[in-house]
Amino acid sequence: MTLFVDMDEVIADTYGAHIKRVNERYNMNLTKEACRGGEVWQQLPDHREAIWRHYFEPGFFRELDPIAGSQEVLRELSEKYEVYIASAAMQFPDSLKEKHEWLDEYFPFIHWSKRILCGDKHILRGDVLIDDRSHNLEHFVGRSLIFTSPHNVNTTAFERVNSWEEVCSKLL
Amino acid sequence: MTLFVDMDEVIADTYGAHIKRVNERYNMNLTKEACRGGEVWQQLPDHREAIWRHYFEPGFFRELDPIAGSQEVLRELSEKYEVYIASAAMQFPDSLKEKHEWLDEYFPFIHWSKRILCGDKHILRGDVLIDDRSHNLEHFVGRSLIFTSPHNVNTTAFERVNSWEEVCSKLL
Repeated sequence: MTLFVDMDEVIADTYGAHIKRVNERYNMNLTKEACRGGEVWQQLPDHREAIWRHYFEPGFFRELDPIAGSQEVLRELSEKYEVYIASAAMQFPDSLKEKHEWLDEYFPFIHWSKRILCGDKHILRGDVLIDDRSHNLEHFVGRSLIFTSPHNVNTTAFERVNSWEEVCSKLL
Repeated sequence: MTLFVDMDEVIADTYGAHIKRVNERYNMNLTKEACRGGEVWQQLPDHREAIWRHYFEPGFFRELDPIAGSQEVLRELSEKYEVYIASAAMQFPDSLKEKHEWLDEYFPFIHWSKRILCGDKHILRGDVLIDDRSHNLEHFVGRSLIFTSPHNVNTTAFERVNSWEEVCSKLL
């Protein structure tokens, strides 16, 4: 079985990093719970552009926390299946090396040959895609699993996994 | 139709860059013709390691010349088909941004969403792969076109294209 796993908001806590910056910079107390059903910027629409620019700050992608359970479960999955990391990173040229280094740190068991930095994900050939974004999941030919992130909690179109524990029980 | 196009030795003259460095550094007069049937390092087996390290020199991938005809033909192809660039770049972390910038310079009409930096290429879903390496072509499910490079002239396993002119006449 070939399995593709997205990075941001699936194994890397991008959403949490946006909240952390917003709380520091605007002296706020946002939480993921308070943001449920939308993007972080929707809590501060006047700062949408500034929040978007987080993606271009040196170190943004390198300093993300791993999502709870992702390391342990992906290690197990990669012993049984062909596990690829597939991140739509090409939009952020400076993220490419940071993402590679981040994987070296937290997912060293995912060999370079199994890392994909791309744009469109419908060009992937395999059995399962775990992703947080509908636009990636809807064009994938295979089993699409939506990984819960605050922004997608109201989406009903896909088989849902709320945690890496649930991924484990579905796939292992 | 979805078309995947490799970078090194298909649209970027990596082979020529190795020869240029070897000629400058070892005061030689190697040519592509003299190397036919093998890799550049096979002409200087004692320097295999040093030639491999070219890949890790800053600027190596950024300074490559485009292969003759690749820009014109890919522009035409991309107006008719879904054209993706797919490069097994993950082995060289410093190449990632350089390759992205190189594409911005020479192939600006290939949008970021159509650029793939990966390892294994058998995870690509599409109709045609143009590549110079047998190990990429043999596992692709679709039409595999081998693009002639000095190192692959003796390979007979795939449909061959000797130039971008030939790609044009086969696909356009």
